[in-house]
Amino acid sequence: MTATPSQDVSAALLIIGDEILSGRTQDLNMAYLAKWLNEAGIQLKEARVVPDIEAEIADALNAMRTRYDYVFTTGGIGPTHDDITVDSIAVAFGVPVVTHPEAYAKMEAYYGAENFTPARQRMARVPEGGELVENPVSIAPGIRKDNVFILAGVPKIMQAMLEGIRPLLRVGRKVWTQSLSIHAPESKIAGPLGSVQEQFPGTSIGSYPFYKAGDYGAQVVVRSADVALVTAAMAAVQAFCADAGFKADELSEIA
Amino acid sequence: MTATPSQDVSAALLIIGDEILSGRTQDLNMAYLAKWLNEAGIQLKEARVVPDIEAEIADALNAMRTRYDYVFTTGGIGPTHDDITVDSIAVAFGVPVVTHPEAYAKMEAYYGAENFTPARQRMARVPEGGELVENPVSIAPGIRKDNVFILAGVPKIMQAMLEGIRPLLRVGRKVWTQSLSIHAPESKIAGPLGSVQEQFPGTSIGSYPFYKAGDYGAQVVVRSADVALVTAAMAAVQAFCADAGFKADELSEIA
Repeated sequence: MTATPSQDVSAALLIIGDEILSGRTQDLNMAYLAKWLNEAGIQLKEARVVPDIEAEIADALNAMRTRYDYVFTTGGIGPTHDDITVDSIAVAFGVPVVTHPEAYAKMEAYYGAENFTPARQRMARVPEGGELVENPVSIAPGIRKDNVFILAGVPKIMQAMLEGIRPLLRVGRKVWTQSLSIHAPESKIAGPLGSVQEQFPGTSIGSYPFYKAGDYGAQVVVRSADVALVTAAMAAVQAFCADAGFKADELSEIA
Repeated sequence: MTATPSQDVSAALLIIGDEILSGRTQDLNMAYLAKWLNEAGIQLKEARVVPDIEAEIADALNAMRTRYDYVFTTGGIGPTHDDITVDSIAVAFGVPVVTHPEAYAKMEAYYGAENFTPARQRMARVPEGGELVENPVSIAPGIRKDNVFILAGVPKIMQAMLEGIRPLLRVGRKVWTQSLSIHAPESKIAGPLGSVQEQFPGTSIGSYPFYKAGDYGAQVVVRSADVALVTAAMAAVQAFCADAGFKADELSEIA
């Protein structure tokens, strides 16, 4: 709501679900949320995956919600017995679970009274004090409880819910990113790249090796909230590549 | 080493890297490791993603290594300045970082003395007491320090390192899994499925909704270390589907 773009705003993600930890399901929400938050000027600082166990969910949530500006949870808000996210988050906050009258009314209208089964009624439950997050895909809402946003695990629904909460989030400093692929062994890039990092402490510089079809090297990524520092550090990277005769691709856009 | 297949053996995964939290890189190691461990009779109980910050890595590692039988880390063991995993894990254990003579000798022989640069020499460093984990892909080794396995972040290398450590791991009870796709609303499945879960407390039953091209329903997954319970619970699921007239696909193999 309040724009304070000179400050860092932090977030964490709590992924809830045995299906992720068993390898049955490849999580897609973390990468999506990370990018989405970054564009919104919010930095994802930590992510955890926990099983469908109430105490595990509550403990992880309590560790995260006191430490970061926002926590997003994904998964476990459906109609079946293994959907225990709402109950677990209520435990974390030390509040009871209550039926949210607006969610109940909306869902009853959507399904019709005769099809509004006890299982569906479960999806109108929130930790006391929870507000609704709209679900434009399949009606059953997400929930906001203080700084915690309880979202669906199905990526399409989770993504739609995120759009609904965008106006509620405090906007922080955007972190600018630029990358350069260098076709030289990472171990030869390492020395001069470390010097660039020392020269530009206001940036965070990463190096990510790649190997494909006989070609290898490293993608160097420079990140900073100060776009001028990104440009300056990247110019220094290009300069050492030119000096050393390292072949480099074109710079990416700054984004 | 010691086969104790009547016991549960637990593991956790610590993913180290700004590139995952920024959304630049989609993590592929968690799903791979989860399946690989499951087949090895080891259960992945928790995963965390932390940034390239020494204290964050050390704190997360200490929380996990005291709680689970094994911890696997991925990422941050390359030659560049942002590769701080070894240093951070040494901090977690309260030991110094030392050069491992065997790793040093192997890498020197592989690269040749003149190409064994300081950056490459960094990759021969281990937390004191660390043993080598072979890297058949690109020589620079992983590390075992007590119950912690420090692996590469590049999936191909991480996967090759895992094969090398398989003989070192204690084998636990395998958890058997069987699944059934039911073409009915999850909210209608919920009631009878909850009853099956109550009837078979020795199983863990999950329900995962799917939506594709006008078709929707839920995949029911039954998991248990007792294969007979999987079969019995799944028979009960099939029975309620038949009673209710829910169309269901063929049962998966038990695996």
